[in-house]
Amino acid sequence: MSRPICITGACSAEDRSVRKVEVVPEFALENGAVLREVSVAYHTWGTLNAARDNAVVVCHALTGSADVSDWWSGLLGPGRAFDPGQDFVVGLCALASPYGTASPLTDDPVTGEPYGADFPKVTIRDTVRLHRRVLERLGVRQVALAAGGSMGGMHVLEWAFEEKADGTPFVQALAPVAVGRRHAPWQIGWNEAQRQAIYADARWRGGHYTPGEGPRQGLAAARMVAMVSYRSYPSYAERFGRERMAPTQATPEPAGAATSQQQNGRSGGDKPENEVFAVESYLRYQGQKLTGRFDANCYVRLTQQMDSHDVARGRSGGPDDSYADVLGRIRQPALVVGIDSDVLYPLAEQRQLAAHLPNATLDVLASPHGHDAFLIETDALNARLRDWRHGA
Amino acid sequence: MSRPICITGACSAEDRSVRKVEVVPEFALENGAVLREVSVAYHTWGTLNAARDNAVVVCHALTGSADVSDWWSGLLGPGRAFDPGQDFVVGLCALASPYGTASPLTDDPVTGEPYGADFPKVTIRDTVRLHRRVLERLGVRQVALAAGGSMGGMHVLEWAFEEKADGTPFVQALAPVAVGRRHAPWQIGWNEAQRQAIYADARWRGGHYTPGEGPRQGLAAARMVAMVSYRSYPSYAERFGRERMAPTQATPEPAGAATSQQQNGRSGGDKPENEVFAVESYLRYQGQKLTGRFDANCYVRLTQQMDSHDVARGRSGGPDDSYADVLGRIRQPALVVGIDSDVLYPLAEQRQLAAHLPNATLDVLASPHGHDAFLIETDALNARLRDWRHGA
Repeated sequence: MSRPICITGACSAEDRSVRKVEVVPEFALENGAVLREVSVAYHTWGTLNAARDNAVVVCHALTGSADVSDWWSGLLGPGRAFDPGQDFVVGLCALASPYGTASPLTDDPVTGEPYGADFPKVTIRDTVRLHRRVLERLGVRQVALAAGGSMGGMHVLEWAFEEKADGTPFVQALAPVAVGRRHAPWQIGWNEAQRQAIYADARWRGGHYTPGEGPRQGLAAARMVAMVSYRSYPSYAERFGRERMAPTQATPEPAGAATSQQQNGRSGGDKPENEVFAVESYLRYQGQKLTGRFDANCYVRLTQQMDSHDVARGRSGGPDDSYADVLGRIRQPALVVGIDSDVLYPLAEQRQLAAHLPNATLDVLASPHGHDAFLIETDALNARLRDWRHGA
Repeated sequence: MSRPICITGACSAEDRSVRKVEVVPEFALENGAVLREVSVAYHTWGTLNAARDNAVVVCHALTGSADVSDWWSGLLGPGRAFDPGQDFVVGLCALASPYGTASPLTDDPVTGEPYGADFPKVTIRDTVRLHRRVLERLGVRQVALAAGGSMGGMHVLEWAFEEKADGTPFVQALAPVAVGRRHAPWQIGWNEAQRQAIYADARWRGGHYTPGEGPRQGLAAARMVAMVSYRSYPSYAERFGRERMAPTQATPEPAGAATSQQQNGRSGGDKPENEVFAVESYLRYQGQKLTGRFDANCYVRLTQQMDSHDVARGRSGGPDDSYADVLGRIRQPALVVGIDSDVLYPLAEQRQLAAHLPNATLDVLASPHGHDAFLIETDALNARLRDWRHGA
């Protein structure tokens, strides 16, 4: 994605991103494990005010990063939902993400080697509590707004429960987008199918591969599964049709998968046998593309982090399904955004959230693009979030 | 699935299935390739009448077989939609299926070895034209009804275009279930993601593996992706919740995927780290189960066969999208059944079919089970199809 901020070169200082890394000396995970020398990468835009209460925390999704301008640029800038002229915008990289926070790719200080498969399972709550440590080091007294979609929305819902020393909320307003109260079996099933595609690659080796020699093809297949889940029937129909094309170099046909007829002289008909449908070419390209910027162990641990999402876990006196009670405790104003074509986090989830949050507004984004609409319909999202913040 | 037919041991001769294999000496595929000594496995129930016009052809789905009693037993039997007392019920195994018809598992008569990856890409039309050859050998003059769901529904729609020598339809009535006019990019995308999971397994070797030493883990991952697509958000939510369980022997946790914390002494918290969600255990079991009864090359060629589905291909004078014209030529009575929760073949597809078929009735099956409802809601399906056949 482009970075509209400062592309003119005439932007104010507030618009420029600052990328930093904070190192937390020691951090105990929910499961009891203790990580040491925990780096957390973060980007900031704007300045923390004197009251230290103008921070806006923007939480990224599965393959996103702390650089909000990379994936939500339409929401960031002068006059936009996240305005560096007024807000101290902070993007923080989640635990297990390959983009700068402690992850399977970072060195275990005990061994001096990358954690790899030994990086522990972390939870949504682990990431939020770690990020809070960083915000406090930055001097943030309280957060004006936490916003994010998909996995970022899970972090937003956990931010809701963070309290200051006096028991009042640390975060004053919430904007969870395309997310639900917990990771449902449907979503866990999608994630597990993707993990299994990674495990099926012999280069996985239980996660104990040499960095750079990991299960690229399995990771690509996982990404392709995910890319289907992120869209919708109509968006694919509109974009691709049934056109066929020659496989490109970027998306090679696996050996033997469709070329055997030629080798055996059986080819015929009016279409070359090795041509693929446009949607196949697209998915292969997307799969390959991710392998150039991601790591399989990070993908596994991040999807497991998403699977940990459950606001009621350990907070409900009754059975696990006491969401009304637990969500009822989130008294901050909340803008819950759902997408009408979202197959992965269907609108029913956001309706349920909005019904149980005592101070919520439900905003339904009409889009054919499915779950990915939260990264595509940024103009609409920006307008709604901005207007909601300004009380319109 | 059980076989309710004859479980009492008191059934009439008409109820008993007969399994046979017919060998077609030579068969030209759409792509020009010619297969020789083409075996076709089929099951029959009941007897062909004197007019030779009481055949009911029941078409199976991706991993189904010619044995209709194995997957649609609720529709087969005395007084049911397919009644061997009146109907000559015929199930035929599709090309590339591992259950008895020519496929990657059968011997290439030229080499004496199994085709494996050299088995050509076949189309829905290839299977239908081959099956017609078999029906004619059985003496069938015309077919009373063709019925089937998912891939079987694609075959049904192609049966619609088969004509007798006098130009009248070979098949008198049609019951396509949970299918559309063509395989849409959405469905091709799902299939391609599954194929890529197979290709990611090093044992795939471009399809050139020794039978029995194929890409079991890749095939299992593909099946898991498919099993998500076959269901729905609510059906998974109702069935699984967020319960965790120990991985069973049948569904082993891949080495290192979740056990590394124990190995490194990092484990803690109130849940053993290697426990998995119920839905993960279920999917792993389903994935492993398929590898015991299926073959990866067959899976690839069958999903490619599904991707070939397009009733308008080569039949439309205009652009490929002239479905109104092409579907308008199907004048047989048709019961089009759609499932309201179907994510993979959404109801919009069946609405479209019914709108364009001149003599169609649309029947919407209300079920939480998604696409798989066509194999689950067999009582409802049986009642509707039976009543429709009897003009109720």
